[in-house]
Amino acid sequence: MKKDLDRLMKERGIDAITITGTPKSSRDMFYLTGPVVVTGCRVVKKLGGEPLLIAGSMERDEAARSGLEVKTYNDFDMMKIGREAKTPLEGSVKSFARICEVLGITGTVAFYGTGDIPSSYAYLSAIEKSGIVKVHAEASDSIFSEARMTKDNGEIDRMVAVNKKAQEVMAAVRDFLGECSEKGGKIVAPDGTELTIGRVKGIIKSETEARGIMIEEAVIFSQGRDSAVPHSRGDDDAVLVPGKTIVFDYCPQEAGCGYFADITRTWCLGHVPEDVQPIYEQVLEIQEKVLDALETGTPYSLYDKMTNEFFDEHGHPTPMKKAGENGYVHSLGHGLGLNVHERPRVSMFAKTEELVTPGHVFTVEPGLYYPDRGIGVRIEDDVAVREDGSIEDLTTLTKEILIPLK
Amino acid sequence: MKKDLDRLMKERGIDAITITGTPKSSRDMFYLTGPVVVTGCRVVKKLGGEPLLIAGSMERDEAARSGLEVKTYNDFDMMKIGREAKTPLEGSVKSFARICEVLGITGTVAFYGTGDIPSSYAYLSAIEKSGIVKVHAEASDSIFSEARMTKDNGEIDRMVAVNKKAQEVMAAVRDFLGECSEKGGKIVAPDGTELTIGRVKGIIKSETEARGIMIEEAVIFSQGRDSAVPHSRGDDDAVLVPGKTIVFDYCPQEAGCGYFADITRTWCLGHVPEDVQPIYEQVLEIQEKVLDALETGTPYSLYDKMTNEFFDEHGHPTPMKKAGENGYVHSLGHGLGLNVHERPRVSMFAKTEELVTPGHVFTVEPGLYYPDRGIGVRIEDDVAVREDGSIEDLTTLTKEILIPLK
Repeated sequence: MKKDLDRLMKERGIDAITITGTPKSSRDMFYLTGPVVVTGCRVVKKLGGEPLLIAGSMERDEAARSGLEVKTYNDFDMMKIGREAKTPLEGSVKSFARICEVLGITGTVAFYGTGDIPSSYAYLSAIEKSGIVKVHAEASDSIFSEARMTKDNGEIDRMVAVNKKAQEVMAAVRDFLGECSEKGGKIVAPDGTELTIGRVKGIIKSETEARGIMIEEAVIFSQGRDSAVPHSRGDDDAVLVPGKTIVFDYCPQEAGCGYFADITRTWCLGHVPEDVQPIYEQVLEIQEKVLDALETGTPYSLYDKMTNEFFDEHGHPTPMKKAGENGYVHSLGHGLGLNVHERPRVSMFAKTEELVTPGHVFTVEPGLYYPDRGIGVRIEDDVAVREDGSIEDLTTLTKEILIPLK
Repeated sequence: MKKDLDRLMKERGIDAITITGTPKSSRDMFYLTGPVVVTGCRVVKKLGGEPLLIAGSMERDEAARSGLEVKTYNDFDMMKIGREAKTPLEGSVKSFARICEVLGITGTVAFYGTGDIPSSYAYLSAIEKSGIVKVHAEASDSIFSEARMTKDNGEIDRMVAVNKKAQEVMAAVRDFLGECSEKGGKIVAPDGTELTIGRVKGIIKSETEARGIMIEEAVIFSQGRDSAVPHSRGDDDAVLVPGKTIVFDYCPQEAGCGYFADITRTWCLGHVPEDVQPIYEQVLEIQEKVLDALETGTPYSLYDKMTNEFFDEHGHPTPMKKAGENGYVHSLGHGLGLNVHERPRVSMFAKTEELVTPGHVFTVEPGLYYPDRGIGVRIEDDVAVREDGSIEDLTTLTKEILIPLK
């Protein structure tokens, strides 16, 4: 939670943090600024102090929408410094020095945000050499990934709301497919035309927008062989056919690039082939087993291990034995928040392992994939751990694989 | 142009380049891959060789849409290396070493792409220390910024097309405003309701989507005092009123996050106030002067200097004398392409200055801003320098400030 930032800074010996980029590109910045739309800015926070937002003077209005204290580049003579510097790099380093001077920043500064890789490297190398401050650069498990992992009640409420809307969209798509029929081995829409994946994606888009949420990450709506390649988005020109597995993996977010939902359902139109049925049942069985077993205070790895063992017992290849493109090919889930993928790690292979903890929101999404047989199955719910330690499955959308046709 | 990359690599002593991130976040990667949708990947190109795309095995289908040769992380044992490493950083460095080993990469490697700032720094510091290769990190003026600055005919054709659609959208908005009327000092839409900026933005959005282009950067549609803060997006709840300056700055891009257009018009509804008219005429006059004067082979700074001098002569504050929030507060323009702002630099303050060169596409956008008087004026066209050195203004949309009301 945000209130953990000072504790984490103290624990790691950080005297001040600075985040550069935009709220959209840097989720850590968004975490502090909210959805303000600027082409670039910087947030500075001293240990125990409130975050300060420094933006271009042309963007001072937008910056103010963050609710943070705002200063402009001009307040630190940054435009002048930039003009007088011999290179842009020199200008950046001197501007940083000026900020430290004005705000009284000394000691160890942690740098966050997103940026161009070579510039970030050149910039931090130069600051390190300049001796202005000691550079703290976390290659992983940053204080933000730590703080953001635990949501407060307000954040969970927002995630519940976006999850609810996401389910409404998926239910609307399911209802639409149930209004379709089969003709000559193809799915035909109520208006009599052959139904393509592209058209379904159009419906997903308009149903999404109608609910005031947005799609930033591409929607996966894929059938048959494509459904067995977990991140294949699906072929827009392909016409849907009965009896093939359709994987619909949908991760919309709040308007303004806020919190995400991430839900997957697998459907078959008209009928469920004999070789799909047992695979689907196994995926559903282990998902339910995990959802029932989840307990606050236990390590996430336990549940991925349980899933690996279950699939192994049922004769499927698993990462536990050998990574590949058949069987169970990914981990059980991932944390969810301002990123689709964030901490906690829900994998038996995680280097640092977290425990199921109040405030965590994560996905539970076992799957089985057989590209050569054209079968892909994944079922994904979002789960929140409440303040009292109780575990809530946010996703109550039907898990019935069969969508009967008209 | 893409074909310049090998020459630039050779000139800078670069034996191989690697780009990490996603095509969406890294425009340099997009430049080579096109609009493929993956959650993360890496492009590697040896001097004189074709780019190779390395992606997760789950995303191999999407990766293949790039048209590049594709290999998966498994082809380099990267999943295994990651699992056996003690830290994610160690895993990343060892994975890179493995790629170099398999592909026979030695010498100096330039790193591009976008990423998390602290991770980028820790990663490149570790590679530098490891001695696997010599790290080349360009803090500015990368080989990509150089190559991308010069568009080939195919790229210019795409930019002409998106510019044309952008103008259609702006013309449709202008037409809609012309159908409105005044009532009690407010603008009223044809349906009789008071017209808010939010509603106009909705029209911009639907007109944009209807033409198969997209808005990634937020649209600026601001009036009065807000129009005088160049990057203020405008207050969605505000009702439009007659006689205030409206700045409409619109930068849509090709579907799939491709090439941009960037156009601004300033309008007054119903009547143009006496104190706005001369300011508008001056901005228009200097824009036309610059557009007439532009000549291949001359430095861009010349034209920004001309603009500064013109405004100075007419009694406006300018950056030439003192940076501030009144008068002329920005530079004349900027290069345009896969980013809204890229090279060439169209500013008298540019550290390295480029010459007007065939293949360049850039904006010409003088403006004057008086927030305390509630007046903002900017007129922005996109200009392309053709192969034969001729200069083409891509933006022919009317520059009439007055939109008469019904």
